[in-house]
Amino acid sequence: MRAIEIRAFGLDNLVLAERPDPRPGDLRMGQVLVRMRAASLNYRDLLTVQGKYNPKLKLPLIPCSDGVGEVVELGEGVTRVRVGDRVCPIFAQQWLAGEPTREKARVTLGGPLDGTLAELMAVDQEALVKVPDHLTDEEAASLPCAAVTAWNALTAAGLKAGDTVLVQGTGGVSLFALQFAKALGARVIATSSSDQKLARVREMGAAETINYRETPNWGARVKELTGGVGVDLVVEVGGAGTLDQSLRAVRFGGAISLIGNLAGIDAQVRLTLIFMQNIRVLGIFVGHRESFEAMNRAIAVHQLHPVVDRVFPLEEARSAFELMEAGGHFGKICLALSASR
Amino acid sequence: MRAIEIRAFGLDNLVLAERPDPRPGDLRMGQVLVRMRAASLNYRDLLTVQGKYNPKLKLPLIPCSDGVGEVVELGEGVTRVRVGDRVCPIFAQQWLAGEPTREKARVTLGGPLDGTLAELMAVDQEALVKVPDHLTDEEAASLPCAAVTAWNALTAAGLKAGDTVLVQGTGGVSLFALQFAKALGARVIATSSSDQKLARVREMGAAETINYRETPNWGARVKELTGGVGVDLVVEVGGAGTLDQSLRAVRFGGAISLIGNLAGIDAQVRLTLIFMQNIRVLGIFVGHRESFEAMNRAIAVHQLHPVVDRVFPLEEARSAFELMEAGGHFGKICLALSASR
Amino acid sequence: MRAIEIRAFGLDNLVLAERPDPRPGDLRMGQVLVRMRAASLNYRDLLTVQGKYNPKLKLPLIPCSDGVGEVVELGEGVTRVRVGDRVCPIFAQQWLAGEPTREKARVTLGGPLDGTLAELMAVDQEALVKVPDHLTDEEAASLPCAAVTAWNALTAAGLKAGDTVLVQGTGGVSLFALQFAKALGARVIATSSSDQKLARVREMGAAETINYRETPNWGARVKELTGGVGVDLVVEVGGAGTLDQSLRAVRFGGAISLIGNLAGIDAQVRLTLIFMQNIRVLGIFVGHRESFEAMNRAIAVHQLHPVVDRVFPLEEARSAFELMEAGGHFGKICLALSASR
Amino acid sequence: MRAIEIRAFGLDNLVLAERPDPRPGDLRMGQVLVRMRAASLNYRDLLTVQGKYNPKLKLPLIPCSDGVGEVVELGEGVTRVRVGDRVCPIFAQQWLAGEPTREKARVTLGGPLDGTLAELMAVDQEALVKVPDHLTDEEAASLPCAAVTAWNALTAAGLKAGDTVLVQGTGGVSLFALQFAKALGARVIATSSSDQKLARVREMGAAETINYRETPNWGARVKELTGGVGVDLVVEVGGAGTLDQSLRAVRFGGAISLIGNLAGIDAQVRLTLIFMQNIRVLGIFVGHRESFEAMNRAIAVHQLHPVVDRVFPLEEARSAFELMEAGGHFGKICLALSASR
Repeated sequence: MRAIEIRAFGLDNLVLAERPDPRPGDLRMGQVLVRMRAASLNYRDLLTVQGKYNPKLKLPLIPCSDGVGEVVELGEGVTRVRVGDRVCPIFAQQWLAGEPTREKARVTLGGPLDGTLAELMAVDQEALVKVPDHLTDEEAASLPCAAVTAWNALTAAGLKAGDTVLVQGTGGVSLFALQFAKALGARVIATSSSDQKLARVREMGAAETINYRETPNWGARVKELTGGVGVDLVVEVGGAGTLDQSLRAVRFGGAISLIGNLAGIDAQVRLTLIFMQNIRVLGIFVGHRESFEAMNRAIAVHQLHPVVDRVFPLEEARSAFELMEAGGHFGKICLALSASR
Repeated sequence: MRAIEIRAFGLDNLVLAERPDPRPGDLRMGQVLVRMRAASLNYRDLLTVQGKYNPKLKLPLIPCSDGVGEVVELGEGVTRVRVGDRVCPIFAQQWLAGEPTREKARVTLGGPLDGTLAELMAVDQEALVKVPDHLTDEEAASLPCAAVTAWNALTAAGLKAGDTVLVQGTGGVSLFALQFAKALGARVIATSSSDQKLARVREMGAAETINYRETPNWGARVKELTGGVGVDLVVEVGGAGTLDQSLRAVRFGGAISLIGNLAGIDAQVRLTLIFMQNIRVLGIFVGHRESFEAMNRAIAVHQLHPVVDRVFPLEEARSAFELMEAGGHFGKICLALSASR
Repeated sequence: MRAIEIRAFGLDNLVLAERPDPRPGDLRMGQVLVRMRAASLNYRDLLTVQGKYNPKLKLPLIPCSDGVGEVVELGEGVTRVRVGDRVCPIFAQQWLAGEPTREKARVTLGGPLDGTLAELMAVDQEALVKVPDHLTDEEAASLPCAAVTAWNALTAAGLKAGDTVLVQGTGGVSLFALQFAKALGARVIATSSSDQKLARVREMGAAETINYRETPNWGARVKELTGGVGVDLVVEVGGAGTLDQSLRAVRFGGAISLIGNLAGIDAQVRLTLIFMQNIRVLGIFVGHRESFEAMNRAIAVHQLHPVVDRVFPLEEARSAFELMEAGGHFGKICLALSASR
Repeated sequence: MRAIEIRAFGLDNLVLAERPDPRPGDLRMGQVLVRMRAASLNYRDLLTVQGKYNPKLKLPLIPCSDGVGEVVELGEGVTRVRVGDRVCPIFAQQWLAGEPTREKARVTLGGPLDGTLAELMAVDQEALVKVPDHLTDEEAASLPCAAVTAWNALTAAGLKAGDTVLVQGTGGVSLFALQFAKALGARVIATSSSDQKLARVREMGAAETINYRETPNWGARVKELTGGVGVDLVVEVGGAGTLDQSLRAVRFGGAISLIGNLAGIDAQVRLTLIFMQNIRVLGIFVGHRESFEAMNRAIAVHQLHPVVDRVFPLEEARSAFELMEAGGHFGKICLALSASR
């Protein structure tokens, strides 16, 4: 089978390799063989390839955690899926439900485990979820990290109809957060540095938009747009670069779901803004399988379609990573791994 | 001012009475005077008039708990509302937020306190909520009991997008439950004995409908419609007559919000169906002011319109109660109290 | 190995059988072999032997779900436990965390799966929990159903320090509920028909006791003991025979954790007592592994000791069941399976 | 009546003033007159006197938010309390239950409202709570901010028996957190720079202690003391100076209740430690009246006694503030306002 390998850190060292196919006897009890159809990129994958995410990772490694495929063979004792099912492997392969642990959080695809940029994957049946029928392969491949993170960012905060949410930018997680917030009945305010992108998020249902380049003090603008109150929830992807404004945009007693630090790791945080305003800051580490399945039910009921920016063939994986590095995309960057529908 | 009075129990003893207007000096500190524009009926109001709800109620009593009016005068120290605001008095006048108590639950409009079928009401500023602008007076008058009960029936169970809810019949609470469940992103299955009414709830967004007269064993049908799993939540209005089927319709680990007993008070309950299925049965007693306000935000964001079956002038209050008694209505029965918009 | 078998329903048909030992090669991947040291009886086990729990159970069956043993051998791929660990198999072998499902709830020990009255058990590593060191084997054997049910009955209702709980009688679950409620900082009121047993629960920390034979209207007495308010939580084991009084003992807005129906299956329930008082009735079906582990941490921190009434050798299993049938015990009835500490 | 006034910022400008007594007719509807018996100091009060908390406060101001007194007179319409009741005014006088708002959070005692260092206070009946009988006046005076904050820091995180909590130092909030954590059944690890103080918290029930001067990298030590896992909850009072270690001390998926910033306002926070570990950071702004009442029930059931370091007479208020400024106290610094019991 073909697979992309990180042989050394750096985009230059991505290699389209040939690996031996897993054979029938190779499947362990409870495992299934999945023929991968599509994968998608997260910012974490770019950092991994660059060696910035975890410089101690053992190489060679097949990158990427998100993808979808078709079950083509069942190991002994498999009952959760059938041959022909279309499934996504889950990000933290051992976190099925309930409380996470450090141990479970370590066993993730795309490092240290081989990831989804391979034509075949052997996966434990417990570490798979079936995907909604109405999705294309590229759409389904976008779910495991980005969508599950967005879903948990909203549901962990108890978001409900009539609440207002702020989403930042137009990356994968933020667009999912917008779509799920709408499905949950909330009103969405979105920020971006591009008026063109803001036009697109308005089409997707954002009630209000703010160009943060034109309005760097956007926290105050959010207050205005909410009658002086502030939003019930901020889905914080910027981290250090945006948290201060987020703490000004959120209502007294509101929540900030912290899921990323695209704009900086070490934040200077005025702590009084947190405790004097009774704010909850909820760190979101993707989520468990049970939340993935609940999210899929919402996607199916609402016939939601993840936003796919562009699809590359496997052999152009490097170009996909370069697009991610360059930024400017709107939605998910995907890879086609085999004949997709 | 004009007001309807229960002088003795029984529909025959409803009287359109003339009472002295509250005068400026009569307002106590913190009270406001509200010129009522519309009221709506709940089944509780019919029982109250009939003497079945609480035979010991002190008469004469102005019936009905639900209504809307305009603030026309402010007592000393009022800051929450202004003259001209359109407001609903809340059902349990002292339950503003948090845990209820027996004492707070007793101080309710339409008995023992005088209710909304009066042209003027003096109400504590804390016991009022402003209503969404897009609603007509009759629509707004429908909110205090029926809508707040439905809202809490859903939110107490943690309903979220992708979940499935069963609503029973087409009374006021059930139609609100349908509308709010949709707003919260859930899928709705509705029952009724009338195919015509089922057609209307499908128009309102019910995904599936069941005629319970044709399918008396509708619990099993609900299981079929949910892939053998059952619904996440039943909004139980029938009580004794329907609870057994509800316990068969709900999923393992699901919830039943118990809000009424239209079909009988003393239920024969197979308790094993509750504890062997890990079911939560949530008794819902309307709700507090804070939940009313949250609901109003959802109504505003989704521009929802309560379903009004018919509007009577105040002098025809008896006909309104007779329509409630006869059944067959679809949505709320309202009374116009003054020039409404 | 020796094991007790139900060959036909009825206590007369319990047989001390000889079954072949599981051999090394027999362990499937992920399984471990456990040499059982002690088991304990639940009322469910008596009903199972009598054929009343599930008359369609396939026989022969090894009864009982609760027990403890020592890991003596590891199958391939086992990482959660080591040889020498003292462990309890969990009741619902596939319910590890999160939401239950009908399917997971069916796969339980002591029917349809063979249970704990056997000298050796092969159990999946995921379906085991380690037990606190300070417990004797009989004490540890008491945990899987009775203690986990009691723990979830309290925690599902959010019980906290300063709350008041009512526990009924002195069966296994109720005594655990008393102990855990104390550990959680709550005040406990206990009922029994025996003044002697009430003296014992007072020694265990019950603040107040009621002899329900002398005070059949004990709901009113509970109100008196709580300043007219009622308890925050009732741990309901009686079911049909006690639920009405429980609904009078609980406070407005309180909870009833429904875990059994010792006093009758089909309850006549006045539903208004539930919804007009905003009561939650929480059906408790034992609980998942994660809750078992959390409970064990509480048992260890508080150095709690389950109450063991009497221990029988395996060959006297029938006498153990007869004692359960006769009633009158105080705490758990246990069986010693091998040299215990 | 006598009262302490801040006439200008700075300890030098505290004045023991004589103000006219509120007279019977002065009470507004719903108000009660309270003869204060004792008050207690919080760090906020010191900052207020120094002009660091809010330099724009209108002066003169009576400082301090915490105190207890006896109801000596009732305004019209008062039903919640009686003459002779011993009561504490609540910190945020309008936050009775439910969600806070910015507006409610502003109306607090000791600034902008006059505080508790006065012999008489007129307080709305809704803004009072009765206190447990077993407490001395100084103990009761310690509750409104420090104890309620500690209580909410634990309960907001869902702390339960068997969990482990870290408390920092031996200030008022931390000692309350220790006592309440024990009452809730948790295991406590405490830090301090003084071995003598650590000996005292061990006497109060701390299972483990760490001298953070000797062990500046105390996060790692906490991990050791919890089998490598980390604590379920940190009650964070240090803020900028301690948050980084707290993020190393907490378990994956655990919580940090952020209640103060004694050791610095602007924290440098490595955000990955929050979201990659699925941590919740819960800002705690004291709490509402309902939580105060729940806490009081726990204090009564457990017969807890707040730790009072030293009691000053009103005329020595300045010395009390100087002791707070100097540090080194263990527990609360109180003022006696009238004959106390």
